[in-house]
Amino acid sequence: MSEPHKTLWAGRYEHAAAESVRRLNDSYPFDNRLYAADIACSIAYARALAKAGVISNTEADQLHDGLTRVLAEFDSGTFRPAPGDEDIHTAVERRLTELVGAVAGKLHTGRSRNDQVATDVRYWQAQALRRIIPLITALGRALVELAKPHTETLMPGFTHLRAAQPISAAHWLLSYFWMLSRDVERFEATLNATLTSPLGSGALAGTPYPIDRTALAESMGFLRASRNSLDAVADRDFVSGFIYVSALMMTHLSRFAEDVILFSSGPFGFIKLDERYTTGSSLMPQKQNPDVLELTRGKAGRIAGHLCGLLNTLKGLPTGYNKDLQEDKEPLFDTADTLETLLPALIGTVETLRFVPERMAAALDEGMLATDLADYLVKRGVPFREAHGLVGRAVRRSLETNTPLSKLPYADYQAISSAYGEDLYAVFDFAASLAKRRAVGGTAPDAVREQIAAAEAWLAERGA
Amino acid sequence: MSEPHKTLWAGRYEHAAAESVRRLNDSYPFDNRLYAADIACSIAYARALAKAGVISNTEADQLHDGLTRVLAEFDSGTFRPAPGDEDIHTAVERRLTELVGAVAGKLHTGRSRNDQVATDVRYWQAQALRRIIPLITALGRALVELAKPHTETLMPGFTHLRAAQPISAAHWLLSYFWMLSRDVERFEATLNATLTSPLGSGALAGTPYPIDRTALAESMGFLRASRNSLDAVADRDFVSGFIYVSALMMTHLSRFAEDVILFSSGPFGFIKLDERYTTGSSLMPQKQNPDVLELTRGKAGRIAGHLCGLLNTLKGLPTGYNKDLQEDKEPLFDTADTLETLLPALIGTVETLRFVPERMAAALDEGMLATDLADYLVKRGVPFREAHGLVGRAVRRSLETNTPLSKLPYADYQAISSAYGEDLYAVFDFAASLAKRRAVGGTAPDAVREQIAAAEAWLAERGA
Amino acid sequence: MSEPHKTLWAGRYEHAAAESVRRLNDSYPFDNRLYAADIACSIAYARALAKAGVISNTEADQLHDGLTRVLAEFDSGTFRPAPGDEDIHTAVERRLTELVGAVAGKLHTGRSRNDQVATDVRYWQAQALRRIIPLITALGRALVELAKPHTETLMPGFTHLRAAQPISAAHWLLSYFWMLSRDVERFEATLNATLTSPLGSGALAGTPYPIDRTALAESMGFLRASRNSLDAVADRDFVSGFIYVSALMMTHLSRFAEDVILFSSGPFGFIKLDERYTTGSSLMPQKQNPDVLELTRGKAGRIAGHLCGLLNTLKGLPTGYNKDLQEDKEPLFDTADTLETLLPALIGTVETLRFVPERMAAALDEGMLATDLADYLVKRGVPFREAHGLVGRAVRRSLETNTPLSKLPYADYQAISSAYGEDLYAVFDFAASLAKRRAVGGTAPDAVREQIAAAEAWLAERGA
Amino acid sequence: MSEPHKTLWAGRYEHAAAESVRRLNDSYPFDNRLYAADIACSIAYARALAKAGVISNTEADQLHDGLTRVLAEFDSGTFRPAPGDEDIHTAVERRLTELVGAVAGKLHTGRSRNDQVATDVRYWQAQALRRIIPLITALGRALVELAKPHTETLMPGFTHLRAAQPISAAHWLLSYFWMLSRDVERFEATLNATLTSPLGSGALAGTPYPIDRTALAESMGFLRASRNSLDAVADRDFVSGFIYVSALMMTHLSRFAEDVILFSSGPFGFIKLDERYTTGSSLMPQKQNPDVLELTRGKAGRIAGHLCGLLNTLKGLPTGYNKDLQEDKEPLFDTADTLETLLPALIGTVETLRFVPERMAAALDEGMLATDLADYLVKRGVPFREAHGLVGRAVRRSLETNTPLSKLPYADYQAISSAYGEDLYAVFDFAASLAKRRAVGGTAPDAVREQIAAAEAWLAERGA
Repeated sequence: MSEPHKTLWAGRYEHAAAESVRRLNDSYPFDNRLYAADIACSIAYARALAKAGVISNTEADQLHDGLTRVLAEFDSGTFRPAPGDEDIHTAVERRLTELVGAVAGKLHTGRSRNDQVATDVRYWQAQALRRIIPLITALGRALVELAKPHTETLMPGFTHLRAAQPISAAHWLLSYFWMLSRDVERFEATLNATLTSPLGSGALAGTPYPIDRTALAESMGFLRASRNSLDAVADRDFVSGFIYVSALMMTHLSRFAEDVILFSSGPFGFIKLDERYTTGSSLMPQKQNPDVLELTRGKAGRIAGHLCGLLNTLKGLPTGYNKDLQEDKEPLFDTADTLETLLPALIGTVETLRFVPERMAAALDEGMLATDLADYLVKRGVPFREAHGLVGRAVRRSLETNTPLSKLPYADYQAISSAYGEDLYAVFDFAASLAKRRAVGGTAPDAVREQIAAAEAWLAERGA
Repeated sequence: MSEPHKTLWAGRYEHAAAESVRRLNDSYPFDNRLYAADIACSIAYARALAKAGVISNTEADQLHDGLTRVLAEFDSGTFRPAPGDEDIHTAVERRLTELVGAVAGKLHTGRSRNDQVATDVRYWQAQALRRIIPLITALGRALVELAKPHTETLMPGFTHLRAAQPISAAHWLLSYFWMLSRDVERFEATLNATLTSPLGSGALAGTPYPIDRTALAESMGFLRASRNSLDAVADRDFVSGFIYVSALMMTHLSRFAEDVILFSSGPFGFIKLDERYTTGSSLMPQKQNPDVLELTRGKAGRIAGHLCGLLNTLKGLPTGYNKDLQEDKEPLFDTADTLETLLPALIGTVETLRFVPERMAAALDEGMLATDLADYLVKRGVPFREAHGLVGRAVRRSLETNTPLSKLPYADYQAISSAYGEDLYAVFDFAASLAKRRAVGGTAPDAVREQIAAAEAWLAERGA
Repeated sequence: MSEPHKTLWAGRYEHAAAESVRRLNDSYPFDNRLYAADIACSIAYARALAKAGVISNTEADQLHDGLTRVLAEFDSGTFRPAPGDEDIHTAVERRLTELVGAVAGKLHTGRSRNDQVATDVRYWQAQALRRIIPLITALGRALVELAKPHTETLMPGFTHLRAAQPISAAHWLLSYFWMLSRDVERFEATLNATLTSPLGSGALAGTPYPIDRTALAESMGFLRASRNSLDAVADRDFVSGFIYVSALMMTHLSRFAEDVILFSSGPFGFIKLDERYTTGSSLMPQKQNPDVLELTRGKAGRIAGHLCGLLNTLKGLPTGYNKDLQEDKEPLFDTADTLETLLPALIGTVETLRFVPERMAAALDEGMLATDLADYLVKRGVPFREAHGLVGRAVRRSLETNTPLSKLPYADYQAISSAYGEDLYAVFDFAASLAKRRAVGGTAPDAVREQIAAAEAWLAERGA
Repeated sequence: MSEPHKTLWAGRYEHAAAESVRRLNDSYPFDNRLYAADIACSIAYARALAKAGVISNTEADQLHDGLTRVLAEFDSGTFRPAPGDEDIHTAVERRLTELVGAVAGKLHTGRSRNDQVATDVRYWQAQALRRIIPLITALGRALVELAKPHTETLMPGFTHLRAAQPISAAHWLLSYFWMLSRDVERFEATLNATLTSPLGSGALAGTPYPIDRTALAESMGFLRASRNSLDAVADRDFVSGFIYVSALMMTHLSRFAEDVILFSSGPFGFIKLDERYTTGSSLMPQKQNPDVLELTRGKAGRIAGHLCGLLNTLKGLPTGYNKDLQEDKEPLFDTADTLETLLPALIGTVETLRFVPERMAAALDEGMLATDLADYLVKRGVPFREAHGLVGRAVRRSLETNTPLSKLPYADYQAISSAYGEDLYAVFDFAASLAKRRAVGGTAPDAVREQIAAAEAWLAERGA
């Protein structure tokens, strides 16, 4: 026979839920990781009930002690869920009742699982963000440290994966630093937005007890209390925000991964990955595979999928809490886990990768100075658009005669345009090309050193 | 010190992977559920190696026996993974070596994890599809059974969630049956597409051993061998296909869920859900919440998210196997698990739900017969477009005078058009309206009974 | 024969692009709407070139005048694209050349289409945001104005679409106001992030001309210059950010739309939509369909799709500009167009909708006061969890005997628990229930009036 | 004053829709391209009405003639929409009325825009599929033709973008052929599924007129009539199916594009793209950019986004037609347009690309024969797993001494294992390695020629 009274809500029920419903509904297997958040928020809530005169201070103490004991059981791995524990909130309350008796039944006064779970998840997410943000800044730091000795290390800069103009390896690395810096700022804004407390919203209509919700919020480390109880219990903007900023960062990291996979491939050979950050093949003894980077790239899809899924789940829900919202947790947890697992491996990859400057230099070709040659003509009074055409013709001549631009006879240049002077050959100097791009954000060593200084200041603000 | 030789590929390696890489890379925690597939395919592979003369029949027997013992350990829960078991394939081979010694090292001859994992996942997916398809047909069956007694039970048919025309409850239920029938046909096509065997493709280039790949495929229950080894190891169309047909079915189920949530809400009241298929509230003792249906609706987002994520992961991958492809497994497993958990609860929900015909009838209003009134005018020779306008004016008059159409004085109708005859009032009969829609697919009881017969024939073909 | 010199880049080319390539590549049909942004930024760029001494002030004046004439042609609809105009940038430069001659060829000095298009799109997006943000605040204002007279208008508050507790109509409306307020804040942050100028980044490596990029940025109304040229030309975070905040807002609006569709349906009847904000049926003369709200709900999918698509497009791109990035524009433009078309219709819908308080009141039932009854027991010393169970049993009794809770004999209550006193019947007062939820964010009229005051202050800050 | 009577549904309306609603609602700007489908289906419907005795044959002739004239106006570009034409259906009917008078009003008898639009869109999609499928098979044909002369052209086969084993260029090309063949089969299945006619379903409940829906379906070229009217009007599975198979094919094409972008990059240099299938740079005269391929890769995101968007839009819609479904058209049209624009450019790209066999050969290195060396040991009785280790150690030795495997002294091999014989050096022959992989699907020239034969047979079945 069914035993409906095991759940928190069984009073009016004659029959327990069908077994298939229980299996579908039970969230304990994944939401049990909220235990510390749930207990911390319950302790704060017990205090708030006491301050509001709803329970006595002694009762609050009893609850506090009992909850601390439940926490210890979870922390030590000795907590044992019971069959009726349909979620972490039920499990904690059930165990609390076993430990402290009837007073446990007072903890839920004026509280619904709707505001409780919304609070727990925010609390948990804030903690996760506090762990993840330093990992991102550490990755940024690793990029900056790797960049420092390479402000004059030449490499081809690509557009359309075609060698375009020479840049420095540092400039390339820092392009990713700045993406990450924007990511960190978005994560910080997300943390701030997370720190709104729904507790005291009840199921949807607010609490009839004189709880000081703002003080309660602050006692849990939140920055503010929510403004509308109906909104508060169903608001998952903070989860969506976390997954979005993660998805966008993963997109950045997928681009970095793509670059390093390419640059460490045989034909490129710009980069050597440390053996400890590669893996081998079960069939081919010679292989060294950049699994960390491939997983980085692949997991960008995973997190983007979580975002698409969550937006789909939220779409068109009617007012107030709906059970659909339970679907927020697994993508949230998986997003945090993915970042916490991936970022350390990426940091190590960056810290241990080595450039191969001779391969990078060998990949430079004079075509990459064609723009410099056009700029040379501009200095001699040719409008840029015309100069571009005149250089284009030199490039074509160079291809037709299979002669590098720097070896193309002066007569050939003259045949194209009298604007070419004999000093044109001075253009064919990669380092000089680099040094010219000195404006803010350019690849000139001086400009890149300014970038590094700015990056370090940004990191210093974050203690990284 | 690191011990790189624990992995399958450590030969050329001086250093083991960094700890962070191991944690990122290890797929055993989620791919261990492939164990039965992995072992079944390895047993078949050992036989194929023997037939090709690569190993002896005795060796094949030893491998078969050893693999059977490993399987037994997994089945009985006594298998213990070792620290170096980076995935299920490694774990099985490691354990096999412990059990049968050096001969285990022959099993991987000519095989790569690339073709092995692609084969295992297809094998696993085929099994999952064989479990899931009957669940969908069972849900279809439940809808048909529920429909049978309700071919004449009137309810409002909605468009734009506005009462539009009367239909029968059976007609409404069968609209979902036909969606599911298309879903099943898509699942069946997906199963067929899954049954292509990549085994014998090696890492990418094919096998140098004279294995009869077609016979090997058939010995594992596949229908055919793949045509191109490079395609075979990186092809995840079958996973994408499975997730897509699941996402689309979930979309259908989300619409059914939405309907039942609405129809069982207080203001509608068309449907009573069985208590065993609802849950209660921790705060509000009176609540009966349709969690099964809300989770159905919410999980439609989850599966759509898996699809978006997988397409993103696959996008732009270079030729051959890339580690990114490891990201196929978790969405695949979760999709199968979601369907296998959800469908039984939905079947139970349908089997136990009851209509409340008096509430459905009460929701019919004469406005829903306005089209019938226009059709009446059409029969009297008024072009439909004009008839529509003439009825529109009657509707407006009815609203202005707060009089139902059937009580609007004949003079009012005449004032609008002389085409209205005194027999117009016969139009106001919901059952008669229903009975008129007799063409194939219409809501007339006769037409619906034909639908039911067709549905039963379709189910009978599938033994459901 | 082909005429390759028509494009900006034809110099080195012997053959023009194939016709199929031209059709694929030409972005003029959709990017021509950037014309005003392109011209404004080119005017600023001409000035910057003059300040840097690259061109003379006279030349800058000529360019300014010419560009102003091109703008006038676009504004007046007299601009005629030429066959070689592969994008708006080419078209403007081509026409400028026709109007001012060779000096036009100086405008592109040190500039690439890569930094040009990134600048134009940011400029355009900033303008779009400046149009859209006031539309959102106007919708917020409409919600607040509608809420004001309804702080005491009772309606059922729902969870799981089941009547849960009484709330006021104002409270329900304000739940959407606060969502929109968060949206506006996200839009404002997106506008800020948009205002970084990439101009002067060249194709990827920076500019060799001594342009003051920060001054140039400010002269176009940007807040700052980008920090790294390679990042700057390929950074589409701002587009992604805009689409994300739009997708999340659309999710909120889809929920509002769902509510209003439900609440204005026949069975609910809480809301009457103004006829001007509904549409009719081509077949059924009586219909009034909430198309605006359905399109709002449906278009939430559209914008979420744009986000998923863009993240997919960005995933795994190698360093620097890649042509894939051209795929940012159509989703961006469509997102802005969708919001600019939808929001006015929604504002009108809100401004004209009317509540039907008698239907809302009729939908209240005493079960919704079950929590209040539990709170009553709590006041009498019963722990909440026990009180919940005792009320659950009263609810069951009420269902079994088909008697409302307020009519259930006192003896029945006593049979359940002696904690029930005769004063329990005072609980059955919806307005009193409302008034009790006075804590911040609760549904009590006083608390809701505080919400309104806070909302008005928030709107006032934005001049709305 | 407003003139509500301009729409098809204005009868009961006092006020016209607000201007903002009209702008939001009007679908004519994008659905006018359905004109030919709409008219063809209307002509068929007029005939069906006549056969059913609802209108006379003379009337059907009048409608046929009038509709043919409307079609001619559209085809010749002389059709002029009127302000009230809110969609293509209204526009056609309005114009028909102008041309043939009151009889036009009979065309909509028993028909709703709900079944009409569902029919039109299916008709349109079927036509689009009939145009697109031959483009895909033509691309497949181009791959096969390019493959034929390259069955013995060696190139590195990659896994993890690391040279793994030698394969032939033909094998690589054919891996994409087989992906496309699966795509075509999915498109063909989608075409079949598209050819279900909803016409005669009315708004939702079916038609009261004695129309032979199956004959009507066949007269329009459909294969069957839909089974349930309520399902039929809201079923968009066929659109979802089309977008899904397109998204998956785009994923395949994105991988091909990625490969060709990489292989035609400077460091790889395996492939030369024809100039006509590349574009240049506005700043850098030397550039030749693979825009076609980058747009292919980028547009994979676009189509995946349409799919995500549509699934989101469909999720949770209540029963029957909802206006949200209007959101199916733009993604559908854009998907078809994208494929029809992209595929010709890709076909041309493939038809004109040239391999650079010397660069491909130069990228082979002996490490890629390590598996062959292990297979050599296997032949000498060493279990594969052990052989893998022994070769791994040779690879390490080769790296440490900077000596290619084929130059590593025999003593070094012997020091590793006595299983190495002096004949080991015969392994170092790339063509021989290729030739060994003769099993079905392998890269051996013979096996690849069998692939080509199978591919040609497949193409021949489709007349391609």
